[in-house]
Amino acid sequence: MRDLPEPLPHVQGLHAYTPGLQPTESGWVKLNTNECPYPPSPRVAEAIRRELGEDGASLRLYPDPTSSALRAAIAAHHGLKPENVCVGNGSDDLLNLLVRTYCDPDAKGGYTVPGYSLYPVLLAMQRSATESIEFGRDMRLPVDRIAESDARLFLLTSPNAPTGVGFPNVELEGILKAASGLVVADEAYAPFADQDAVPLLARHRNLAVLRTFSKSHALAGLRVGYLLADPEVIALVDRFRDSYNVNRLSQAAALAALGDEAYYADVVARVRVTRDAAYRRLVDGRGWFTYPSQTNFLFTEPRNAAGKTGPDIARAALEYLQAKRVLVRHFASHVLTAPFLRITVGTPAEMAVLDQALDSWQKE
Amino acid sequence: MRDLPEPLPHVQGLHAYTPGLQPTESGWVKLNTNECPYPPSPRVAEAIRRELGEDGASLRLYPDPTSSALRAAIAAHHGLKPENVCVGNGSDDLLNLLVRTYCDPDAKGGYTVPGYSLYPVLLAMQRSATESIEFGRDMRLPVDRIAESDARLFLLTSPNAPTGVGFPNVELEGILKAASGLVVADEAYAPFADQDAVPLLARHRNLAVLRTFSKSHALAGLRVGYLLADPEVIALVDRFRDSYNVNRLSQAAALAALGDEAYYADVVARVRVTRDAAYRRLVDGRGWFTYPSQTNFLFTEPRNAAGKTGPDIARAALEYLQAKRVLVRHFASHVLTAPFLRITVGTPAEMAVLDQALDSWQKE
Repeated sequence: MRDLPEPLPHVQGLHAYTPGLQPTESGWVKLNTNECPYPPSPRVAEAIRRELGEDGASLRLYPDPTSSALRAAIAAHHGLKPENVCVGNGSDDLLNLLVRTYCDPDAKGGYTVPGYSLYPVLLAMQRSATESIEFGRDMRLPVDRIAESDARLFLLTSPNAPTGVGFPNVELEGILKAASGLVVADEAYAPFADQDAVPLLARHRNLAVLRTFSKSHALAGLRVGYLLADPEVIALVDRFRDSYNVNRLSQAAALAALGDEAYYADVVARVRVTRDAAYRRLVDGRGWFTYPSQTNFLFTEPRNAAGKTGPDIARAALEYLQAKRVLVRHFASHVLTAPFLRITVGTPAEMAVLDQALDSWQKE
Repeated sequence: MRDLPEPLPHVQGLHAYTPGLQPTESGWVKLNTNECPYPPSPRVAEAIRRELGEDGASLRLYPDPTSSALRAAIAAHHGLKPENVCVGNGSDDLLNLLVRTYCDPDAKGGYTVPGYSLYPVLLAMQRSATESIEFGRDMRLPVDRIAESDARLFLLTSPNAPTGVGFPNVELEGILKAASGLVVADEAYAPFADQDAVPLLARHRNLAVLRTFSKSHALAGLRVGYLLADPEVIALVDRFRDSYNVNRLSQAAALAALGDEAYYADVVARVRVTRDAAYRRLVDGRGWFTYPSQTNFLFTEPRNAAGKTGPDIARAALEYLQAKRVLVRHFASHVLTAPFLRITVGTPAEMAVLDQALDSWQKE
């Protein structure tokens, strides 16, 4: 029997992105992957049933390769043109296509730390040169350092994950006016924020905005994200895109979701109210340092009964919560994030369960 | 306003794969993209409705990142272990991951011509060195030339597309015993063939088999494919895989489809009967050279009223059919394929429409 060939030299050192735990059994209060606590618009299930018909006959046919109806609807939603839009199998698909378009050993991919931890994974797959720019604990956007970066592509989680901190458009513009590369505002959480970067697209060709239906639109299970950018950027990214990357039901579902703005405005408003109340309980009630959040999660520094904080305290809280069947997320690998937990904003009832669990943890 | 950065140097020369026409209006006899002419098993629509529930609430949650239930079912179906299986967003997803794992400017990707025309596109995206091995008109598998290739990854459409010709396992084994790289039998059409390469996996670690739910299982619209290979190969490919590459409804649908073997055995048997009858009409009725097909399509060389064949004749037939709202596919870019048309096997009624259209074309 012939042996296996060697993979490319960099593959042995690659570590796949680690997604949050996705338990298959029920009974968990799941506050670990920033999913929406409310179901999608009823129009979504209707649209899927309509596409299915009686017997699912349409499923035998390939989907629209360019998701053209969805591109047009997304463009209209943002006051842009279909040529400004590319649709992906989740926004992760589009991040990967951007990296393949712009980055390699001689063309840097830049990102901040902390930020979405998929970026260095995608850049490593591409053997890209990288530049990581560290935030301080104050989480002020390092405008000058990003502006001076020679990265061909700069990936900026905005609002930031996992801290939840938002960045004012005026600071983003400071970067865009000076940056030599394409700056991607990865706005997975922007629908929960006070401000977003879409209006800046008209003034800055070197800006791209990435959005997802996974968070605010409660469609994480269907994998739809989109990129808004200059038509030249879209055309390049499209060359790397799989011709049938977004399936029929996902296209139909996202289109239906986009048509129900009132429903989602209500969902977002409810999440924000729950978030702001939970923030106050952490800060005023427990005295825990917590970043002001522009997202659907809170990044908080647990303090134990003895008043201590730190990575070990955060891990102890994580494990205590898990034993109570409450899932949250801990990013242990960086000094700035290790003393914190990231807690998705759930329903008020879920947040009450969390509160009780934290109360009893603090008493032990 | 800052200008756009340059993409990587090879991007300007890339041409995205050209999928077949996917008309959105009805009224076409669509025999151009090898879709199944019958709907999926009724269990598929049931499974999707069950996953949807009343209000689509489960869609707010991310899918199982590893498609673990589906991997297990696929493994059981083929008498393998879950570690032998990776599931993709269509088999194109997995082809891309294989190329990223094994190919680069110093590690060749090999393929035959003709073959699935996506391979050179994926290799070009990766800036891979390539080796293409040409078939002769007899479409005999060039066993020795493939066996002698130093390609790290060799992609073999088996049965071949677009000709439909099948290759005996004994010839595949001739390649596997000698090849230095990983040989991928891309078996998109194997369910329609007399033989497949899955039994060879037990004897050849350097074989990987690629399958899809798009053709025989009537789920092109949902994008599910899978790779069967040595666990080491699967583990490597998984490092490049997007963590949520296959969505909830697609996982549920493929799992349901796999559970209804009797339904699909009947679908495949009907397609084969229609195929073989259509083959006889082309060969005996019209006297057109047509490759014996082990797939769900026929590759035939149209002959006009004057008895002439060639690229112009094939194009004339294509355009005539299109004017009659019958879509078939023409691969004009290669000398071996340009005189031919590829015709998907539809329902008997669709094949009758095709027949009438070809009759009237031949009379003009």
